[in-house]
Amino acid sequence: MAIEGTSTAASRRIRLGMVGGGRDAFIGGVHRIASRIDDRYELVAGAFSSTPEKSKASAADLGVAPDRAYGDYVEMAKREARLKNGIEAVAIVTPNHMHYPVAREFLKRGIHVICDKPLTSTLTDARKLAKAAEASGALFVLTHNYTGYPMIRQARDMIASGELGTIRLVQVEYAQDWLSENLEETGQKQAGWRTDPERSGLGGSTGDIGTHAFNLASFVSGLKLEELCADLDAFVEGRRVDDNGHVLMRFEGGAKGMLWCSQVAPGNENALKLRIYGTKGGLEWAQEDPNYLWHAPLGQPKRLLTRNGAGATAACQRMSRIPGGHPEGYLEGFANIYTEAAEAIRARQAGKPAPSEVMFPGIEDGLAGVAFVTGCVESSRKGAAWVKFANYMRR
Amino acid sequence: MAIEGTSTAASRRIRLGMVGGGRDAFIGGVHRIASRIDDRYELVAGAFSSTPEKSKASAADLGVAPDRAYGDYVEMAKREARLKNGIEAVAIVTPNHMHYPVAREFLKRGIHVICDKPLTSTLTDARKLAKAAEASGALFVLTHNYTGYPMIRQARDMIASGELGTIRLVQVEYAQDWLSENLEETGQKQAGWRTDPERSGLGGSTGDIGTHAFNLASFVSGLKLEELCADLDAFVEGRRVDDNGHVLMRFEGGAKGMLWCSQVAPGNENALKLRIYGTKGGLEWAQEDPNYLWHAPLGQPKRLLTRNGAGATAACQRMSRIPGGHPEGYLEGFANIYTEAAEAIRARQAGKPAPSEVMFPGIEDGLAGVAFVTGCVESSRKGAAWVKFANYMRR
Amino acid sequence: MAIEGTSTAASRRIRLGMVGGGRDAFIGGVHRIASRIDDRYELVAGAFSSTPEKSKASAADLGVAPDRAYGDYVEMAKREARLKNGIEAVAIVTPNHMHYPVAREFLKRGIHVICDKPLTSTLTDARKLAKAAEASGALFVLTHNYTGYPMIRQARDMIASGELGTIRLVQVEYAQDWLSENLEETGQKQAGWRTDPERSGLGGSTGDIGTHAFNLASFVSGLKLEELCADLDAFVEGRRVDDNGHVLMRFEGGAKGMLWCSQVAPGNENALKLRIYGTKGGLEWAQEDPNYLWHAPLGQPKRLLTRNGAGATAACQRMSRIPGGHPEGYLEGFANIYTEAAEAIRARQAGKPAPSEVMFPGIEDGLAGVAFVTGCVESSRKGAAWVKFANYMRR
Amino acid sequence: MAIEGTSTAASRRIRLGMVGGGRDAFIGGVHRIASRIDDRYELVAGAFSSTPEKSKASAADLGVAPDRAYGDYVEMAKREARLKNGIEAVAIVTPNHMHYPVAREFLKRGIHVICDKPLTSTLTDARKLAKAAEASGALFVLTHNYTGYPMIRQARDMIASGELGTIRLVQVEYAQDWLSENLEETGQKQAGWRTDPERSGLGGSTGDIGTHAFNLASFVSGLKLEELCADLDAFVEGRRVDDNGHVLMRFEGGAKGMLWCSQVAPGNENALKLRIYGTKGGLEWAQEDPNYLWHAPLGQPKRLLTRNGAGATAACQRMSRIPGGHPEGYLEGFANIYTEAAEAIRARQAGKPAPSEVMFPGIEDGLAGVAFVTGCVESSRKGAAWVKFANYMRR
Repeated sequence: MAIEGTSTAASRRIRLGMVGGGRDAFIGGVHRIASRIDDRYELVAGAFSSTPEKSKASAADLGVAPDRAYGDYVEMAKREARLKNGIEAVAIVTPNHMHYPVAREFLKRGIHVICDKPLTSTLTDARKLAKAAEASGALFVLTHNYTGYPMIRQARDMIASGELGTIRLVQVEYAQDWLSENLEETGQKQAGWRTDPERSGLGGSTGDIGTHAFNLASFVSGLKLEELCADLDAFVEGRRVDDNGHVLMRFEGGAKGMLWCSQVAPGNENALKLRIYGTKGGLEWAQEDPNYLWHAPLGQPKRLLTRNGAGATAACQRMSRIPGGHPEGYLEGFANIYTEAAEAIRARQAGKPAPSEVMFPGIEDGLAGVAFVTGCVESSRKGAAWVKFANYMRR
Repeated sequence: MAIEGTSTAASRRIRLGMVGGGRDAFIGGVHRIASRIDDRYELVAGAFSSTPEKSKASAADLGVAPDRAYGDYVEMAKREARLKNGIEAVAIVTPNHMHYPVAREFLKRGIHVICDKPLTSTLTDARKLAKAAEASGALFVLTHNYTGYPMIRQARDMIASGELGTIRLVQVEYAQDWLSENLEETGQKQAGWRTDPERSGLGGSTGDIGTHAFNLASFVSGLKLEELCADLDAFVEGRRVDDNGHVLMRFEGGAKGMLWCSQVAPGNENALKLRIYGTKGGLEWAQEDPNYLWHAPLGQPKRLLTRNGAGATAACQRMSRIPGGHPEGYLEGFANIYTEAAEAIRARQAGKPAPSEVMFPGIEDGLAGVAFVTGCVESSRKGAAWVKFANYMRR
Repeated sequence: MAIEGTSTAASRRIRLGMVGGGRDAFIGGVHRIASRIDDRYELVAGAFSSTPEKSKASAADLGVAPDRAYGDYVEMAKREARLKNGIEAVAIVTPNHMHYPVAREFLKRGIHVICDKPLTSTLTDARKLAKAAEASGALFVLTHNYTGYPMIRQARDMIASGELGTIRLVQVEYAQDWLSENLEETGQKQAGWRTDPERSGLGGSTGDIGTHAFNLASFVSGLKLEELCADLDAFVEGRRVDDNGHVLMRFEGGAKGMLWCSQVAPGNENALKLRIYGTKGGLEWAQEDPNYLWHAPLGQPKRLLTRNGAGATAACQRMSRIPGGHPEGYLEGFANIYTEAAEAIRARQAGKPAPSEVMFPGIEDGLAGVAFVTGCVESSRKGAAWVKFANYMRR
Repeated sequence: MAIEGTSTAASRRIRLGMVGGGRDAFIGGVHRIASRIDDRYELVAGAFSSTPEKSKASAADLGVAPDRAYGDYVEMAKREARLKNGIEAVAIVTPNHMHYPVAREFLKRGIHVICDKPLTSTLTDARKLAKAAEASGALFVLTHNYTGYPMIRQARDMIASGELGTIRLVQVEYAQDWLSENLEETGQKQAGWRTDPERSGLGGSTGDIGTHAFNLASFVSGLKLEELCADLDAFVEGRRVDDNGHVLMRFEGGAKGMLWCSQVAPGNENALKLRIYGTKGGLEWAQEDPNYLWHAPLGQPKRLLTRNGAGATAACQRMSRIPGGHPEGYLEGFANIYTEAAEAIRARQAGKPAPSEVMFPGIEDGLAGVAFVTGCVESSRKGAAWVKFANYMRR
């Protein structure tokens, strides 16, 4: 992001705390790098682990002062809210079931929240969190990070401006292979909590990656889901949550879609792919090669748009740091969410609205994600019957 | 196919007739080239068009003697059956609704039939044709030509021999864009009959290309369909048949699948893609790049297998003519079906069974294809409800 | 090629003979398929092998009458020239050193020659053959088959019409790996003669595939070579000819180029790639994926042109048989040369010039190819010094 | 890099200064992001521009205290060397001709230098800088950043461990299109200095990107250049330095190579590609898709290795931060150089050798780069004659 050179040092860096993300965690490190890339955050406090000792060890690793390492997020929220230079924002990178209780504590103290996805592990929690976010003066940012990729912003732009005509079809998928065998029984920590319905939620692949796919499809297409029909499976013996989901979608206005999420598809690492077709053209994008976007205007040759290359729109350029042909990746896309959040936080603190081009996912997207997972699980339990999405979006 | 050099001239070339395939037709020319590539057929008769004059004009174009150009397929069947050197086989390349009446006339006279897909335009006709084929001493060959691609044969082999373990997932799609607008109203001949339920059948994209996708998925995976749920659309205003199909599939034994067929997806020419995942690995293949097959053994790097390259199996080599890196295409794959048919015909004439490696699609596959289309249409009419495939396969 | 339907049967099929191409040969079978695809030839005679017995056995395999199977090409030329329905054209598919003596016999009897590349094994022979061809009333066709690919014709068209502006750069390469080890010592027949300077010529990889690369670059760019500097190697111990060539090229008018040919590059099957850059745009094409052509207009997104797809020029469509997305391959490209030859032969027989769009390579291209190989060998022997191409093109 | 959690906060962050990189610069911002990603540096001082005012404005943008913003690098070096918490290292991101004078000032005061490439604009300066670096107790790091890509480290590892056998061929290229027209005359700042021999050096494309290609080929292959033959062009009218270079290379031990660098090849953004072939296999890598590495073991199917995926070596994993399928890009590769530099600096400060796996490019690589450019320019001036590389490497 062309962020440097636009603000004074004093106002640029936001004091950031973190809950979760201690040793052995995965996504916490990603959030930290993302927060650093554009130099808009400074990590100054954290409840990195569930005990004060472990939390302090992580703090030492991370250059956080020992007196700002907490073993308890409630204590952290209380004390930081009182400190003169307490944190302005908190990143929540715990397993899903902790998102709601943790976020609540910070939101009610006016501390801005940057929370990993999915929003919560249950729809009940999601609704409570939505209320808490709305009641708070603080911002709520949900890191559906794929929305931060420059070519995704360009795709959204092109569709919003009518370049594809009326959208008819949305084909989205997110395939992985890391759970093709019963990894959770080996003690692998990530597999453990992500396949545990108590910590992850009722959806397995649907919650872990299906929500990303659904969010991305919605973000880019601008379409609202009306009904879905989901056939979920737990192919691996003994698995307690789905590891594959086949979903048909009907959108308001008549567009149709397919969503496939799988964690048992050998050869797929993080194969999130989105294809959208309208009356005037098609777009295709793949997360593993994120600097490219195929555009097929109906009746003309396909074009390969590149990040910051010829044909890049303003939205794409705004989310880019370096010239086309020098790939930016997952961390830069994630950083874009963080940097947009920083802009929004500074604007909020100044009593202004966020710039119009800031469009990180928020509480409504989070609720939609949990509604989607819940709808999929219920549809599947009914034999893959069609269910109305609105039923799950009700507050 | 390594066919040359294996037989005498006399026994190599089969006397072939054709019904359909006159001027302006598309698939007839494809069948003729396919029949010539391995020099196993000689086109000697035809009812190429619906009038004797047009048929004779086509015959002249094609080097067929005028006295063997017929304006009527019944007359052709009768006379050729009586001729001393009458045709041994007939290729049927008419619109779908004519497949049954034409095939019947030749089958009952013991003339082998090579018929384009889908089998028929209605399930009733399909059942009748199945009976006619079974009652005849002649062979019935259905040109689901994609099964003739060498890498498809290799994929089938690899799965049959257990290299992928137990199959869990079948993701198949066939996307086109040529019907994104209302081409049928412009008088374009191909669009005309292919969107006319009287000539094409109740399924539009499902019948025209969905059957190919379904056939290919079945051929390669070896799985039997148990249930399906189909959401079909006619997106183009005024269109009388579906131009997009979203289908969920459940196979016997628990595997699941998704099938997408579309003729309104801009940027897709003939994007037939098949991906199959099992407990031990995955395979991916795309018709537009047919000389490649991705193989991902679980936990190992993906390999890009090439036609006749390192790693080619006997089945792949058998269907190839030239070295790896020199692409063979659609016509060679089609020719493989023709050449296998020639082998089977010569074997049948000699009172022997066809060689075990011969595996062109036949009447049962044709019936399954029409059952699939019919099931999709009925499921969709019920609001995309699940229907049992066996209901449609009943004779 | 849209050939069917344009002529009467009598005039369509040309009576073809073949010299070489018996059992165990490779390229003979390719020529035969290529001749059949558009039904413009009928193989009726041949000196397939060096003994009458072997030749007759091949004839039997191929459906050629025994009395037209010859053990000697001189006898064949003499007799066929006298027969009432003797061959009209002969395909020469022998090792390189035989091209000249065989072609001479047929040319002097007015029989059209379709000859495999390179033209000859020595520059002396090439010059003699050029004279023989010019003295003959018969046509001479050289099967630099890659010029028959539809996208290559489109590329040539685009450059000729100025779409790329002034050409600055030509990067061409043809990499293989099949000679990475000393295959010729194992008795493999193809490796044997292709690495034998007596039969193949002084150039190994330069003659076998470098000539293809050079021819293709010249054909598409329209540029004339002025000087070259070649560094050749025989990496495999004991090899008698080069198996790798690195060549710098300077063209008339100031364009520059690089040519790489190799038979010792593991992972490359037939990786012939051509990239051409001008002041207004660039083109990229790869033989292993021949249905695609990348076009990069300067300052605009790259377009992926497809055979017979949106953006296909008339030249591309003319060389295509089936719709875009249904791949045509090596054999169809080869067939295009044969079919163009048929058109030219029929025109010549009718006393007319060949249609202007017919552009198969001929004797001049063959001479240029041998000049190129000779120049490379001499440059390399001088320590990779620059040599003038015109020196080798002198008659 | 798996850096977090390995050291205390106090020792992790290195106090960094910067010379160059003010507003409108390009590479300075890249260095800053690279320094932040793994949190091993803190930017605390800089002579960002050539006047104190501009430098202070940049400092304010960047959060650097005003009293440490200098308008003069000599003043900066002197004062920072005396400060109690003065900078430990300096990043030099000026145009090439300033690298030597700036580096000298810091090196002689024992401040570690991280310098952009190429080392200097002249061979004389390069030799002087080499002496200065050797005389200093400080480290000299040259940001040939492409050596920091994880798959490049894996490629180097695989070759060093003999997986490719004896290397025969190195094909490397770096193509761009941004100078296809006379951009320098438009006042564009980057084009201005990069095509000015006074500031950039005698080589244009050879210096700007050819050095990257040469460095990468050397780094991965481990081969030493013996001789080269270069044909350079300035295709754009009025351009004062080469914008295209065609180079043949001979390595010690008999391997051969081709290097192509161009800034006038439309459709190429930063198309740096490396292909290396040995007796036992081949490797192919492209900078624009850096998370992939093709490995072709001779006689086996090609494998597509992915960053941190199945088949990743320890060297690859060490340079990676996130799981396979989540792309890392240019900035992460650049950060790897910075982080390795940090490890080496801390080791040096502790009186220990750097860890053996640290392998950022240094002064010798820089000298080789300038020798390469100088050799190319001289070879080309002699009509593209062969020149000995050792002549230019002499101190």
